This record gives sequence, structure tokens and C-alpha cells, in this order.
Amino acid sequence: MDNANRFSYFLPLMRRGLFITFEGSEGCGKSTQIALLAARLQRQGTRVEIVREPGGTPLGESVRHLLKYAPEGVGMCAETELLLFTASRAQLVRERIRPALASGTTVLSDRFLDSTTVYQGVARRLSTKVVAEINAFAVGDTLPDITFILDLPSELAWERRTARDPNSDTVDRMESEPQAFYEAVREGYLALARQNPGRMRVLDGARSSEIISEQISAIIDGLH
Amino acid sequence: MDNANRFSYFLPLMRRGLFITFEGSEGCGKSTQIALLAARLQRQGTRVEIVREPGGTPLGESVRHLLKYAPEGVGMCAETELLLFTASRAQLVRERIRPALASGTTVLSDRFLDSTTVYQGVARRLSTKVVAEINAFAVGDTLPDITFILDLPSELAWERRTARDPNSDTVDRMESEPQAFYEAVREGYLALARQNPGRMRVLDGARSSEIISEQISAIIDGLH
Repeated sequence: MDNANRFSYFLPLMRRGLFITFEGSEGCGKSTQIALLAARLQRQGTRVEIVREPGGTPLGESVRHLLKYAPEGVGMCAETELLLFTASRAQLVRERIRPALASGTTVLSDRFLDSTTVYQGVARRLSTKVVAEINAFAVGDTLPDITFILDLPSELAWERRTARDPNSDTVDRMESEPQAFYEAVREGYLALARQNPGRMRVLDGARSSEIISEQISAIIDGLH
Repeated sequence: MDNANRFSYFLPLMRRGLFITFEGSEGCGKSTQIALLAARLQRQGTRVEIVREPGGTPLGESVRHLLKYAPEGVGMCAETELLLFTASRAQLVRERIRPALASGTTVLSDRFLDSTTVYQGVARRLSTKVVAEINAFAVGDTLPDITFILDLPSELAWERRTARDPNSDTVDRMESEPQAFYEAVREGYLALARQNPGRMRVLDGARSSEIISEQISAIIDGLH
């Protein structure tokens, strides 16, 4: 998709909403930035819908629960994990994202297909080609217009995750992965951003949320 | 896989179990035939494990529930359905089927990858190529040694389904499909059997369970 097509819904007669996704490791600040951007867009009169992955639909939330709390003593294999994530995504795209975009609503998604490319493809070492094919099957032509990657050193991401609930002794399945996994995830995102310079923007997630929010706003305004 | 390789575990030094799958529309008699064959094999001293799809693992049974009872008022899209079926299958293959076969146990499965090829590929009209790729991703090299298709005219299949519980007003999501869907499923199985004459055997599901059981036993004995 070239830029003229991608942003054609900004022309007065076109009303398709903008599809913005947020990526990065746990603790990178996605939720905060999504809330700040949603509030700003709404003040400007834009209709906004926020979705999250996995989840965002009744079925997807059930899949999210399975992914986070797989039955004890049973290792979920990487192939199963990828197919569950993409099942949730296929439903989210058709049930919420496409209808919202078609009605002119801007959609902000906490994770989307790049999470699968990075988490299952790079970090779990599944075939990049197969991951791309299954992703394409799940989303069809519904691709983000712009994707923000909130980049964070894995040590800092880890500190933020544990600081959220220091007394908790229950850690979900994804968050209990070792440090090397998170480092692979970070490198995976940075490599993906180099391959997709038009769609993906890397922001320094270690900066204050106010500064990051201003950077995001400036980029969104620059799309007009 | 040529025949020499496929049946090499019958040689005295090889101990891999036989992987036998059963396919056909609902009501075709799969469960009965699986029970009869399992009993016969066990009488002969063969270790047997029975699995079913979707399901067969704690995670797979959760996925089965999602597939059968998707939240009210929300249409599950065909892509989601395919990805959930294959997620359950990927886990079943790695958690139960491969370890069982490796230990010399014969595995009987009530449905396997052909169900996806037929139900999602043919009847839901998803791309045959993509369905085959996702199936291959889910199962790897774990393919059935032999597959029995219990063929039944769709009218007869329908009669048997309703006769099972005539007073029930709760019909699950898959069983509430219209007749044309079941006819497409039947034709899909027959076409698949023509493409895979070595692995798939079509049996007349309208005959008595005793006769079908004898046919199956004769075919299994003939593999030795």
C-alpha cells in the first residue's frame, strides 16, 4: 500500500478510521500511551475504540485466559500458542476492528500481528515464513496504518514488571519467561522496525510518559 | 512416505505404534467403531490410546468447549474456527500422540487433520492451500498411517443425530448447520479419499456396525 492509498481516508469524502497499534515488551508503557492518545483524539472530536490482544471479543478473552493460565503441569507448545494468538486476532479483526474502521472510528490496539512475528517467530524460533503466512490468513488486508514500538532495555522492563505488584507470588505464563527471551523479543522488534520503516516507529520507552506522548501526537498529526 | 517406511514399525525391532484416524460426518458411527477396534486390539495384546478432536488434552478440551458453545450473538468467523481446531491439534500431537506412538502404543483418533481440510477448507470455502499449510504446521510429520471414512448420506446422518436425543432443544453450533453444509462435507471426504488412496479407506456407514467392524479389522490385519 503506498502512502497516497494508506492515508486516503483523510480526504473529506473518505471516512475510514485510522488503525494504530502499540508494540513492545511487557512494562514498556503501551497502556499509558494508548490512554493518553485516546484522550487527546477524543478531545479533537475523533471517535476512538481501544482493543487489546489477545482478547477484545468474548471469544478472544476466553483465548486470552487459556494463553495466560494454561493448565498446570502441561507445557503449551509454541505451535499451539501461535495458533491461539492468531485465532483471537482473526475474530477481533472481523468482529470489531473492520466494522469500527469502516464507520470512521480510529482503532488503537494494544499489540497486533507484530507481537506474533516477534514472540512466536523470533523468540520461540518458529519459521518466519509460516508465521507470516498464518498472520496473513488471520488478518487479511487489515494492517495497521502506523505502529509504535516502545523500546526498553530488558532489565528496565523487568524492573517495571516486578514493581507493579512486588508482593505477588503469582506470575502469569508469559511473564515468567527468562531474561534471554525478553532480550530476543526486544531485538526482534528492532529488526522488524528496520524492515518496515514506513509503518513502524521506534520510541525510547525509558523516557517520561509525557515526552513519549508528545512524540506520538506529533507523528499522528504529521500523517494529516 | 513410501509403504516400506510407513509400516517399518511392524518389523520385530521397531516398536512405534500405529496411528489410525476415523473421519466422517456426525452420526456416522465413528465412536462405535473406535470402541470395537480398541477392544479387539487390546484382546490381541496391543496397547491402545483413544483421543478425540477437538480436545484430548486439558487445553484442547477448553478449546473444544469454545468451538461448540461460542458466546451467544457473536458469529465465529471461519478463520477463527480453523485456527482453534488446529491449536487443539498441535497440542494433542505433541502432548499425547507422539509420546504414545513412540512408546509403541497404537493411537485411535476420532477426527484429525482431514476434518479441517473438509470442514473448513471445502465446506467453509477457505483456501485449500492455506488450510494445508496450517495443518502441516500443526501436525509436523505426525500423519495417520490409515484413515477410515465412514460414509453416510446426509439425510441418514441427520436422522441419526436427531434420534440420539429427540427431546433436546439444545443443539451445538456445529450440529445446527444446514443440510447443504453436510452434503458439502460428505463430498469433501469422498474427494479427499480419491486423492489419498493409499492412506484413506471409505466404508459404507449405513451398514451394520458389526459388518463395518469386520471390514476395519480385515484392513488392519492386512497391514501386517
